[in-house]
Amino acid sequence: MTTTLQDCRALDASDPLRPLRDLFLLPEGVIYLDGNSLGPLPKAAPERVARAVREEWGEGLIRSWNTAGWYELPRRLGDTIATLVGAGPGEVVATDSTSVNLFKVLSAALALCAADAPGRRTVVSERSNFPTDLYIAEGLCRERGLELRLVEAEDIPAALDARTAVLMLTHVNYRTGAMHDMAAVTRAAHERGALVVWDLAHSAGAVEVDLHGADADFAIGCGYKYLNGGPGAPAFVWVHPRHAERFWQPLSGWWSHAAPFAFTPDYRPAAGIARYLCGTQPVLSMTALECGLETLLAAQPLGGMAALRRKSLALTDLFIRLVEERCAGNGLALVTPRDHAQRGSQVCLARDEGAYAIVQALIARGVIGDFRAGPPDILRFGFTPLYLGFEDVWNAVEQLREVLESGEWRRGEFNRKQAVT
Amino acid sequence: MTTTLQDCRALDASDPLRPLRDLFLLPEGVIYLDGNSLGPLPKAAPERVARAVREEWGEGLIRSWNTAGWYELPRRLGDTIATLVGAGPGEVVATDSTSVNLFKVLSAALALCAADAPGRRTVVSERSNFPTDLYIAEGLCRERGLELRLVEAEDIPAALDARTAVLMLTHVNYRTGAMHDMAAVTRAAHERGALVVWDLAHSAGAVEVDLHGADADFAIGCGYKYLNGGPGAPAFVWVHPRHAERFWQPLSGWWSHAAPFAFTPDYRPAAGIARYLCGTQPVLSMTALECGLETLLAAQPLGGMAALRRKSLALTDLFIRLVEERCAGNGLALVTPRDHAQRGSQVCLARDEGAYAIVQALIARGVIGDFRAGPPDILRFGFTPLYLGFEDVWNAVEQLREVLESGEWRRGEFNRKQAVT
Repeated sequence: MTTTLQDCRALDASDPLRPLRDLFLLPEGVIYLDGNSLGPLPKAAPERVARAVREEWGEGLIRSWNTAGWYELPRRLGDTIATLVGAGPGEVVATDSTSVNLFKVLSAALALCAADAPGRRTVVSERSNFPTDLYIAEGLCRERGLELRLVEAEDIPAALDARTAVLMLTHVNYRTGAMHDMAAVTRAAHERGALVVWDLAHSAGAVEVDLHGADADFAIGCGYKYLNGGPGAPAFVWVHPRHAERFWQPLSGWWSHAAPFAFTPDYRPAAGIARYLCGTQPVLSMTALECGLETLLAAQPLGGMAALRRKSLALTDLFIRLVEERCAGNGLALVTPRDHAQRGSQVCLARDEGAYAIVQALIARGVIGDFRAGPPDILRFGFTPLYLGFEDVWNAVEQLREVLESGEWRRGEFNRKQAVT
Repeated sequence: MTTTLQDCRALDASDPLRPLRDLFLLPEGVIYLDGNSLGPLPKAAPERVARAVREEWGEGLIRSWNTAGWYELPRRLGDTIATLVGAGPGEVVATDSTSVNLFKVLSAALALCAADAPGRRTVVSERSNFPTDLYIAEGLCRERGLELRLVEAEDIPAALDARTAVLMLTHVNYRTGAMHDMAAVTRAAHERGALVVWDLAHSAGAVEVDLHGADADFAIGCGYKYLNGGPGAPAFVWVHPRHAERFWQPLSGWWSHAAPFAFTPDYRPAAGIARYLCGTQPVLSMTALECGLETLLAAQPLGGMAALRRKSLALTDLFIRLVEERCAGNGLALVTPRDHAQRGSQVCLARDEGAYAIVQALIARGVIGDFRAGPPDILRFGFTPLYLGFEDVWNAVEQLREVLESGEWRRGEFNRKQAVT
């Protein structure tokens, strides 16, 4: 029996997370399936950012470092993020960009290996990992004379051996939505004596993450995707407490100092995760990130990440089923795993021809997903259970069907490339 | 003949830069002498940031990377900053923090030395340089087995020798307001075969800077002091074109890639200064920085940095004269050089006792300066000609005189230390 619009409406009617969509300001007529690239605007953010601008900056001026709590922002936001990824209080800071934070933790991981197991000279990662992770690793490996070994996901276990220093992976793949079993992969790496760095860019706020449960070593993640922190929001960094104080990460700016306002000429690292800070953080963007995090905290009394994950899987299941039922014969191939245990919070479809233009035609109709160049070229759709409903999924698939059946995507306007795709 | 309030009012009346103070929202009853720590709120910023939040983020969502120009922000703002520091278009990017940018350029400078003059194994800096610069240098030197040699300002020429790889200095000293002669110091370093890295944190937007005229090699600077970019605003980085493409700086994130949205696994650095980018930038904070930069652009038709510099020196001259005339016998000692050529845009006063409490008592009276612990303990006052007038200087000195003569600073409330001082 095929799925109907009535079925979707019934799912919305019985959805206990439904009230959470009121926490966001979404444009009229838009179905936003790109929260995995940039989360939408929390309703609280305009006023809160305006207050940070007018009152904290404008009226409080320099005094706001103390009176408005600016000084505590990286730690305060870090403590909230910790609750979403299975870390403890005082173990996470919100700061810098994902790439900069990866540089810090990968430097730390390599330094620990150099001290404990100098014969280990290889960093293993996935060939389809998000490129910035590979670029940062490439730079560090070149500088240290190490080998960066890129393999396919299925070849990771075999690639771990006595030469492996660090296994660096993104938990949920940005191109395919495939998710690693964090606990199993970490265990396999540890059994072979390697440390593991996890990039949570596509999993923090999207899937259940349990860093301590998985016994992970290092993690970083993004503030502007599923954490809804706004464009270019600061990222975050976690280090397992067993490693946190073993190394002075190289971006040893004053905010990582034990006493930054003592202004001493000699470096002395702060205790714990604070030593993974570097310089002054962008307060206005941090303020928006705090509003984004609050949208996830609001889900706590409704079941938290477990409930969000259940709904996310229901949404992506529905999207896959509807695409197969209603868009069959249009050359779309499912790239994202069907197995729940291997799926993040997005669905990716490959198409030999026109993937870019189809995405543009959908955007023109108000269904915002994105395109990732291949091969294979991919139409990428992110499903954020905080604000998406089941009828949204129905409507998105209907628009996709109409774009495909009308052939409108062949029009020139949908085939012009933009700077950011 | 001593200076009078009438003299100060006459100076304001004939000040061609006077209209610029209307570009700022300053709190009623405040004389803000801490723009060297955090510039005040430009009048344009609340609405502009609100638009970035509501329209660009909220309505435009992911599309704003193209439609709102987010993608170009680091380069666009960099081109504006370039006009303030004697750099060319396409030579500066606004990005990351000052500390992170220093790590990039010092890494680059050391790599160039390792290639061209491997025998040079010393980084020379000033012992009273801003600590984050010293911490970053300490980390890089430790990692590379180099020596970090800290000397007093007057001993810098003698410290430059055949072992010197890099001379790393802050143009205007954060504690004393003393300014180096950038051209002469750079020439001396080059004559001895060393590269020079300049930190412009206390000079960009405050004094005339001519990086090309001085033939400098690398420079970084701060967005939230004299550039009025808001709390934690992104910083900037400049590399002389002769060096820009010689090195892949180690924070080789995707924004430094030649084709970031091609998502290729192999790193290929962008041409020119774009390779000094790393990850995604905080757009809301970048938007505020753009408003801050516009306050400096508004001075261009009135004479630009040369006119601002003339007024800055007139303000600091007046402050020094009034303190000496009206606060004599109160134990204050001038730390900042009297010589214009050696003075930045701030005046620092040392006092053996009570400097912290005196600053707090002044803040309670609406005169906001700051304290820097010694020895000697320092009362620090920044003078930004964009929004300060000569009567402000008079009033600030009167408040200082009253605080000193009343002894009110001895009260307990002014002697409690805060997290950020």
